[in-house]
Amino acid sequence: MSGAVSNTTRIGWIGTGVMGHSMCGHLLAEGYRTTIYSRTREKAAGLLERGATWADSPGAVAQSSDVVFTMVGFPADVRAVYFEPDGILAGARQGAVLVDMTTTEPTLAREIEAAARKAGASAVDAPVSGGDVGARNRALSIMIGGEPEAVDAVMPLLQILGRNIVHQGSPGAGQHTKMCNQIVIAGTMIGVCESLLYAHRAGLDTERMLQSIRSGAAACWTLENLAPRVMKGDFEPGFIVEHFIKDMGIALAEAQRMGIALPGLALVHQLYLAVQAQGHGRRGTQALMLALEHISNIRR
Amino acid sequence: MSGAVSNTTRIGWIGTGVMGHSMCGHLLAEGYRTTIYSRTREKAAGLLERGATWADSPGAVAQSSDVVFTMVGFPADVRAVYFEPDGILAGARQGAVLVDMTTTEPTLAREIEAAARKAGASAVDAPVSGGDVGARNRALSIMIGGEPEAVDAVMPLLQILGRNIVHQGSPGAGQHTKMCNQIVIAGTMIGVCESLLYAHRAGLDTERMLQSIRSGAAACWTLENLAPRVMKGDFEPGFIVEHFIKDMGIALAEAQRMGIALPGLALVHQLYLAVQAQGHGRRGTQALMLALEHISNIRR
Repeated sequence: MSGAVSNTTRIGWIGTGVMGHSMCGHLLAEGYRTTIYSRTREKAAGLLERGATWADSPGAVAQSSDVVFTMVGFPADVRAVYFEPDGILAGARQGAVLVDMTTTEPTLAREIEAAARKAGASAVDAPVSGGDVGARNRALSIMIGGEPEAVDAVMPLLQILGRNIVHQGSPGAGQHTKMCNQIVIAGTMIGVCESLLYAHRAGLDTERMLQSIRSGAAACWTLENLAPRVMKGDFEPGFIVEHFIKDMGIALAEAQRMGIALPGLALVHQLYLAVQAQGHGRRGTQALMLALEHISNIRR
Repeated sequence: MSGAVSNTTRIGWIGTGVMGHSMCGHLLAEGYRTTIYSRTREKAAGLLERGATWADSPGAVAQSSDVVFTMVGFPADVRAVYFEPDGILAGARQGAVLVDMTTTEPTLAREIEAAARKAGASAVDAPVSGGDVGARNRALSIMIGGEPEAVDAVMPLLQILGRNIVHQGSPGAGQHTKMCNQIVIAGTMIGVCESLLYAHRAGLDTERMLQSIRSGAAACWTLENLAPRVMKGDFEPGFIVEHFIKDMGIALAEAQRMGIALPGLALVHQLYLAVQAQGHGRRGTQALMLALEHISNIRR
């Protein structure tokens, strides 16, 4: 892409799951010509009805796009859509900007950026937080790693998708920042779930307990938003256990690579593996409560 | 005490450390006749100048008071001021209400309440959160356990000291609620410190990282209030490590007694023992960072 985004910028979008579908929809609504690919074509149907063009592979999307967004599942999926023979890098146009919004490995983000540069394109990592609701309401927090020129080029498009958009640093810095986000959440989640378990066993009225602690030093998003769900026995996602396990696994691997120990994160990761082993991998992250209850032989 | 608090209600106050000094001062300022005792008499000097009367023992305080407040350090201190031969229970007047605002064991709170009842008095557990700043600004959160009649009787006095005042249930329920508060904080603290360690090692600009994550699902009091201190290398208390270790120890012992496992809290408790072993027991709880850095051999 030479210079900034304009009305004629051709968008490519790969991955139309819950998040990707909403996000791509906002770009379509702004009038951008958009070509899409998704592993499951049915998931793209709504976007095709609204004027998007289907392409048969990530490479074919890249061939007709100035900016290519990816929002897929796991690092292996990211690797596939970028590096396979019919992948994005094979089809990327000179000057294109490739924007991976999947939460993935910082090292993979750097690998993609280097490969893109070699192919005469550029790449930006731009994972998000805010979940399906944030994606729907254009309220995502977007954490960006990449060279300034590439970041500046796609900024007007990112501003259509999110609210709190921060260029964190060089390639991979967006992913690293997302890891920092997930590490904090691992802590708040174990704290809140253990607190609720204690309250339950101590015979407290948990609603009333929350009234005492929610506005002080224990205040956190998890207490405010997920504790009430746990108390109602509502384990619907939100953010699913399998994806959180993926994120924590990435953070732990990166931490090991960097030579630091994160004992709290490692413990929470293990407990979530237990949640998954109990068959709750597709439930919301508040299902950590189920593993804690199971360990203490408490039936719900 | 027969019936409600009035202007002539005689107050006793035991324990004039940083918190107790501020709190007792608010009651004095409202014109209550106040008798005080503190292990270290010098710490009471300011209150004596403002009109409080000194007594030579907790029992002597109780003899001349309708409502006796205690705000001391550890459960052993609470046990001493209540149960020793010249303690509160030995001196308590018929109908007096004894209010322990120390964070202590829920089982000890119930023991005091039973002993008070036997002595013709009543007892309320009313630990607080909000720290020295909350104590100074009459902004404490007060979590109350006790029989309704006793709680109602002292409510007007508690309303002078705090803002968020909730009667949580029977004797011990205030202490249990405080434990719930501390359990959440243990989680947020490990999450925030590990996140900062990761960010540092990944070469992120931590200020900028916080800008990305502070308003989303990672939002918490600890991130907002203690992360900036850690980043500046400011480990002044706030709330000191030794007291947090005490609180976590109580919560773990109660949890064991109730038959539940709290693996996250146990891990954080152990890490704080390491912080203390490194000589940081009188520093603020954000000094957890120092143990994490030490483990990973990072020098500050």
